[in-house]
Amino acid sequence: MLGGMQDFALRVPRLIDHAAREHGRRAVVTRWADGRETRSNWAGIAADARRCAQGLERIGCRPGDRIGTLAMNHGHHLATWYGAIGMGGVIHTVNPRLFDEQLVYIVGHAADRVLFYDRAFEPIVERLRDRWPTIERYVVMDDDGRDGFRAFVDAEDGGYAWVEGPERDPCMLCYTSGTTGNPKGVLYEHRSTMLHAMAEVAPAVFDLSSRAVALPIVPMFHAAAWGLPFAGALAGATFVFSCVNEPAVLCDLMNRERVTHSAGVPTVWLGMFQHIDASGEVPRHLKLVSIGGSAAPRAMIARLMGMGVHVAHLWGMTETSPVGTAGSLPADWDEMGLEAQLDLASKQGQIPFGIELQVVDDDGGVLPRDGVSAGRLLVRGPWVVKRYFGADEDAIDAGGWFDTGDVAVLHPDGTMQITDRSKDVIKSGGEWISSVDLENAAVGCVGVAEAAAIGVPHPRWGERPLLLVMRKPDSDVSAADVLRHLGDHVAKWWLPDAVLFVDALPHTATGKLLKTALRERYRDYRLDAA
Amino acid sequence: MLGGMQDFALRVPRLIDHAAREHGRRAVVTRWADGRETRSNWAGIAADARRCAQGLERIGCRPGDRIGTLAMNHGHHLATWYGAIGMGGVIHTVNPRLFDEQLVYIVGHAADRVLFYDRAFEPIVERLRDRWPTIERYVVMDDDGRDGFRAFVDAEDGGYAWVEGPERDPCMLCYTSGTTGNPKGVLYEHRSTMLHAMAEVAPAVFDLSSRAVALPIVPMFHAAAWGLPFAGALAGATFVFSCVNEPAVLCDLMNRERVTHSAGVPTVWLGMFQHIDASGEVPRHLKLVSIGGSAAPRAMIARLMGMGVHVAHLWGMTETSPVGTAGSLPADWDEMGLEAQLDLASKQGQIPFGIELQVVDDDGGVLPRDGVSAGRLLVRGPWVVKRYFGADEDAIDAGGWFDTGDVAVLHPDGTMQITDRSKDVIKSGGEWISSVDLENAAVGCVGVAEAAAIGVPHPRWGERPLLLVMRKPDSDVSAADVLRHLGDHVAKWWLPDAVLFVDALPHTATGKLLKTALRERYRDYRLDAA
Repeated sequence: MLGGMQDFALRVPRLIDHAAREHGRRAVVTRWADGRETRSNWAGIAADARRCAQGLERIGCRPGDRIGTLAMNHGHHLATWYGAIGMGGVIHTVNPRLFDEQLVYIVGHAADRVLFYDRAFEPIVERLRDRWPTIERYVVMDDDGRDGFRAFVDAEDGGYAWVEGPERDPCMLCYTSGTTGNPKGVLYEHRSTMLHAMAEVAPAVFDLSSRAVALPIVPMFHAAAWGLPFAGALAGATFVFSCVNEPAVLCDLMNRERVTHSAGVPTVWLGMFQHIDASGEVPRHLKLVSIGGSAAPRAMIARLMGMGVHVAHLWGMTETSPVGTAGSLPADWDEMGLEAQLDLASKQGQIPFGIELQVVDDDGGVLPRDGVSAGRLLVRGPWVVKRYFGADEDAIDAGGWFDTGDVAVLHPDGTMQITDRSKDVIKSGGEWISSVDLENAAVGCVGVAEAAAIGVPHPRWGERPLLLVMRKPDSDVSAADVLRHLGDHVAKWWLPDAVLFVDALPHTATGKLLKTALRERYRDYRLDAA
Repeated sequence: MLGGMQDFALRVPRLIDHAAREHGRRAVVTRWADGRETRSNWAGIAADARRCAQGLERIGCRPGDRIGTLAMNHGHHLATWYGAIGMGGVIHTVNPRLFDEQLVYIVGHAADRVLFYDRAFEPIVERLRDRWPTIERYVVMDDDGRDGFRAFVDAEDGGYAWVEGPERDPCMLCYTSGTTGNPKGVLYEHRSTMLHAMAEVAPAVFDLSSRAVALPIVPMFHAAAWGLPFAGALAGATFVFSCVNEPAVLCDLMNRERVTHSAGVPTVWLGMFQHIDASGEVPRHLKLVSIGGSAAPRAMIARLMGMGVHVAHLWGMTETSPVGTAGSLPADWDEMGLEAQLDLASKQGQIPFGIELQVVDDDGGVLPRDGVSAGRLLVRGPWVVKRYFGADEDAIDAGGWFDTGDVAVLHPDGTMQITDRSKDVIKSGGEWISSVDLENAAVGCVGVAEAAAIGVPHPRWGERPLLLVMRKPDSDVSAADVLRHLGDHVAKWWLPDAVLFVDALPHTATGKLLKTALRERYRDYRLDAA
């Protein structure tokens, strides 16, 4: 041996050990569903996690077993993550918003042996218990009684050493909520989770240190709460969790606990703005708001920036752990005008070390980073899926690239901009029309509540856009009004060939437009050749 | 296969690829020794690095070979690092300030095959060329002629793919400048270097992003310039390099290039203060100054803080890549008074994820983190040495701990405070007296230029402190003055039994007090029993 450096397996329990040792007194606050508030800290979470691991082992769980949760964000959920992983198990966060058939499929596919759940989801458990034969033990997270989490962990003495093993061992399982077919499981590994956490604390992503007080609104059952429970431990951040996402509750917590970092989907902030307008109460300590799931409207970004907050778009997916890009401040940010700042902040952000992105055309040819060429977005990196859980073949191509299903443009400065989902893009005469751009422009029209653009068959152009519009209550906006408005915002050849008004638009369990259903419904809709 | 995440070897060339791809236009500025300034950027450095690797391969270098440099901080040095590593080689940064015997030993021990050097070090090369038989090729870094770096790289076409391999392959070799025995080589690995770089960009260490403009004053031949050339590429920071460290030159560069981050030993800032006092010119954009090598005096920290700069002590050593701890701002920093802030900033900082520290007594018993118990400081982690280059046995104990040779106290909040070097601590009646604390207190006495405290034999106490003082020019400070001053700053039983005045104190090549020589010189000094 020539010499060299120390061995150090990138295993997740090192995070909770570090947090307990170096940041043991930093708080982990929970506001429960019933309004109670409890305070723990990283030392307390670590102690609970160790006992949770010990309890899991006592009831017969073994390394590699999947441990399910059906729960909101709280300290017991956090301890369960680290406990299940520390026991060598795989924490599987089940999304309670899925439909019953999906819940039955996912839990069965994962073969979860234990389920930790919140009382709020008792109806789901009662309904599906008979259809979840793999689950041998149920533990109620927010119940201090005999079957509750506290009793489960307090029965142990904490004399337990984390299970060791290779860093490529699995540690977490999250299912995508696909719009077609069965959900697919992404099996995160200790190593991928650790590298992702190390990347996330960087100033260009979550900018996390022990000064941060983070309130993740994104649920822990959604793409690992974007990795915050891991990155926060690494940085020694304080956590503030809330089981309810009412704006008044969140705003009050944010001010009392001096929350500096928050993260969630755009809808959350619409609710917060209504609360601010109605109450005059504003979150006063926020410095960074990370927005993902879907794109934040420009006006939302502007309003948050006006509150002194840096707004960072996050782009990613369950398959990318989930951080793919993050909106970071460029060197010349302070010299940019507000409009230029908003232009930049409205895009999906920059590429952190580890992630590589490519935009390719239909033939797989790599498109230039010219800020114009839109194509299928491919991603690769250490925290990107290689093979779905239980799948027979890899989900990546020969070059190691995973097709995100998004259509995007890469700008010369490295900024990525999503323009559509690839299955939603409208292909008109060989050119692509972004359904998302049409929808965003349409909802800017007075009287439009929501809009969906889909491609329908056209004899000459192959496909042309059809726009489905849901009016706001009491609005009588017309098709001509909508088209006139669109004419100011998109290219002329993008204008929909027809605008139809509907009473409602279908959505997935996670609130996304269900375009597959719309395409099915309007499959036989005929546009005139023009 | 159950499923899982993508393969991704933690290899250093990924850093330069990332920087070139995502931050290609961010500048790398060099102020050369002759006053010229040149500008490149990450794309340019990457292109030079690729050609440098190609050139090294052409002249017969192979993976694993050591490539030496004897150079200051500049863009060509940076490109050589990435070129040598990208070729699969091991970059070996030779410290030109070492004595000839050490230079001969180190280059021979490393068996360097190529040496890239600055013209400023031509005298060293001329003097030692015959004693460096392993070196087959010399390249002058700052010479545009036939034997220069530009000619070396411009002879290649850049059609070169980085050498791939295991992430535990070596990539860099740095020698410690020990005060006794031969220097020892620490062989950094791709993996350790990458994890260290990922850790360094965190807000709690260097807080690096693509907004940062970094001027590392710490030389690239000293402990890998504290890892900045790697972390800066990861973050896409701009680099400003200077081959000379005159304060006027640095201050001018800092203002013209809007330098936000700098890093160096305390002495640099003493010079900068003199420049500021004389010229009125102040570095105006600095946000973070990282100070390592030795402890910054409290007054220095206070003055930098008064300039709006966050001062972060870094503690580490060549054996720790080198970051062991970094001074980060605690959550309640803004509520702390200035004196409390200075108290904290004067200590060595907090422990980043990856690093573990322990303080043990003479029997190896672990001491509490009570802010009082001083003991030998042990360290372990993924970027800590396991075995020195070419050594026959590991440098760590059975628990994986490396003995730093420092004496330290750990505080309950996780802050680490160095109190002495373990071989310098004065053992009086079973209790430890910090020689460093005595010296720091002594230099606070009017008229004292420098002071050294060593233990000398004492019939009753085993050892007692002897203080050697060098007066400032024209000062006539007396032993009684010094003792009176010390009485206000240290415990009574710490007061030196004798104060002797000397004309000069011996130093190592890197400017540290050479205590071994002093102990040797005063070995027979006899104190009275008291």
